[in-house]
Amino acid sequence: MRAGDRGAANAASRAQRQLRVSSLPPYARRIARIRSSFAEAGIEALLVTHPANLRYLTGLDATMGMLLVEATACTLIVDGRYLTAARGCVGRAGELRQTTITPVEGSYEGTLAAVLRRTGRGGRVGVESTAMTLAAFRHLDRALESVRSSGAAVELVPVERVVEAARVVKDSGEIETLREAAVRLSAVAREAVALARAGRTERDVATDIDAAIRGAGFTKPAFDTIVASGPNSALPHARLGDRMLRPGDGVVLDFGGVYDGYCVDLTRTVQVAPASAAFRRLFDAVSEAHAAAIAAVRPGVLGSEVDSAARDALARHGLADAFLHGTGHGLGLEVHEEPRISKAGTAHPDEPLKPGMVFTIEPGVYVEGFGGVRIEDDVLVSEQGCEVLTDVPVDPAPFLAGA
Amino acid sequence: MRAGDRGAANAASRAQRQLRVSSLPPYARRIARIRSSFAEAGIEALLVTHPANLRYLTGLDATMGMLLVEATACTLIVDGRYLTAARGCVGRAGELRQTTITPVEGSYEGTLAAVLRRTGRGGRVGVESTAMTLAAFRHLDRALESVRSSGAAVELVPVERVVEAARVVKDSGEIETLREAAVRLSAVAREAVALARAGRTERDVATDIDAAIRGAGFTKPAFDTIVASGPNSALPHARLGDRMLRPGDGVVLDFGGVYDGYCVDLTRTVQVAPASAAFRRLFDAVSEAHAAAIAAVRPGVLGSEVDSAARDALARHGLADAFLHGTGHGLGLEVHEEPRISKAGTAHPDEPLKPGMVFTIEPGVYVEGFGGVRIEDDVLVSEQGCEVLTDVPVDPAPFLAGA
Repeated sequence: MRAGDRGAANAASRAQRQLRVSSLPPYARRIARIRSSFAEAGIEALLVTHPANLRYLTGLDATMGMLLVEATACTLIVDGRYLTAARGCVGRAGELRQTTITPVEGSYEGTLAAVLRRTGRGGRVGVESTAMTLAAFRHLDRALESVRSSGAAVELVPVERVVEAARVVKDSGEIETLREAAVRLSAVAREAVALARAGRTERDVATDIDAAIRGAGFTKPAFDTIVASGPNSALPHARLGDRMLRPGDGVVLDFGGVYDGYCVDLTRTVQVAPASAAFRRLFDAVSEAHAAAIAAVRPGVLGSEVDSAARDALARHGLADAFLHGTGHGLGLEVHEEPRISKAGTAHPDEPLKPGMVFTIEPGVYVEGFGGVRIEDDVLVSEQGCEVLTDVPVDPAPFLAGA
Repeated sequence: MRAGDRGAANAASRAQRQLRVSSLPPYARRIARIRSSFAEAGIEALLVTHPANLRYLTGLDATMGMLLVEATACTLIVDGRYLTAARGCVGRAGELRQTTITPVEGSYEGTLAAVLRRTGRGGRVGVESTAMTLAAFRHLDRALESVRSSGAAVELVPVERVVEAARVVKDSGEIETLREAAVRLSAVAREAVALARAGRTERDVATDIDAAIRGAGFTKPAFDTIVASGPNSALPHARLGDRMLRPGDGVVLDFGGVYDGYCVDLTRTVQVAPASAAFRRLFDAVSEAHAAAIAAVRPGVLGSEVDSAARDALARHGLADAFLHGTGHGLGLEVHEEPRISKAGTAHPDEPLKPGMVFTIEPGVYVEGFGGVRIEDDVLVSEQGCEVLTDVPVDPAPFLAGA
């Protein structure tokens, strides 16, 4: 078979496999996709310990747990706190019936070792090195000594991005959830921009925004709501304070919500009346960068190219050095996940965008002592280009007419 | 010098050192204490990367950052998001003046490598293995190759509990903060128990509790508020749902707040009228376990002994197997920290309690299909014994008179 033929045959078998995979219900499909990447990762099994990955593969919402995905079996190890919930997940989702639930006896590591001793399996077991602490790795490796001394060959292999690589492209159910979440967060944003009035403290405004987030049907805020006013807005990750909003302040409002497990994130910057030319100058530059980045989003473009579009726009305004972070980050079960929309050459993978990716576009500029402006929306990469999921006017001016 | 003399001299020099250390303002004192543990940990410097430890040593409230503590110098590495805040911390706290702030260039690891190349220092650098991921460790170790090839001997040494061991005993400022936080959370608890009424959903009640937490002056809830009713209360870590509270339901209300960076945590279990003997049986058993554990708290007692006091009380009621978690956990800059008040033989250090330790006492029982009861207060180990910081009646009955 020539190389070309083999490629074609592989493509056909891939397509077939994909077809077979697609007819499965979501959890089984996701686990099948993870298994199909074992060979490339050089592993025979994967130990999933990152809570978001655990939830992605089983539906279990827990702060701790282990899922051992082997070629033909899955073992879910949970402690007493999550046992009932785990049974619920496996029971509800018929597709997880092949999963064995094992309660923790003593410690997680010890329980995993006991499972491997009992089954006599093992081999090269991948561990999620971006989520597992160095201490946990060392404890686990020590616990597996008992498996090795029983004659089984077990090796822990640090791997990165096995489940994350699957999570980066959302399936239709996830997209539906994120779309709905973005609509709801946009309604919150319309309330939020009207809340920033002179005489109120940053904390007052944040409390009202958080209540609006809960009122809009979110389980909780996706992160600590940011209300950064006047000079405080020069801190990209400002902490909430008791500063009172004053006339002429720029106010960055950055908030998010978790809806059915999925995170959305939105920022608007408003100015408490009266308007000023200095604020407007920053605002217009960021607004231009925001539009340029969104215009650059389409399948095949690199994340770093979208980042450059925003960065170049700010450079044209002499504000290149005032943009202190990346242009965006992926959204999903975590509020910061892949893809990263940031400068080329940073540590994160910089891959071509694919339809089904969902991320923020949030350029900002920060001038110490004066203040900052950030504008953030959530976008979905579509087959054709880009769908902006959030829906709120960028320019806060109309909201301030009556201020 | 004989061994005994050396011991006495050492004690005298320790007392002197302690005196000198005590006269320093908090951040410098804390850093001095960390340095004094380098020899025992077998390190010449410590790279602090755990955000709570970073905050403990500098006051900086950031999700990311590196503090390199060397024998006579400190270097704080932060990215653009936290640069202004870092300058504020170092500027405000005169005691941190010896700290150099270095902005991230490219990556954190690369920036640290550049600092070490420039200073020519290095040696055995401890890394916080319970907070650093395996991937971060590997990236960091790779980045330091450039330092090694420049001729410096740099070795990363995984260490555990260097800063945590200092944090476990609170200083007077921290105790004052936690005491105030507990008083405020107790006020929230009195509101909360009155909120659990038939016809309201778990989510409604949680939203009101969260608003009360903010209203009481907390920055935010310390974790996702738990309102678990009826059979849901059989899950120790129940997730909020839309279940409506019904007459006769037991309802676990578990919530916390962050006050000036410090976390407090409180649980009460109430029954929506009418009362039932089945609920009362569980309640009385947990109430007894809670009282027994608090009575056991005093300096010199092991955490596991306090846990046994609760566990033995439940065993007397035939409920040993229904207690699915440890009796308590430390409180401070994190909502779960040392000491752990749990079964002997679990992974955590099980050390004698010392005055200044602050932790929860929260026994609970969980009966699948029926429900659960948990009662939680926050205590401070005093010189004499135990001070209960929270102040709310354990028995919910008085609150239900009018239900």
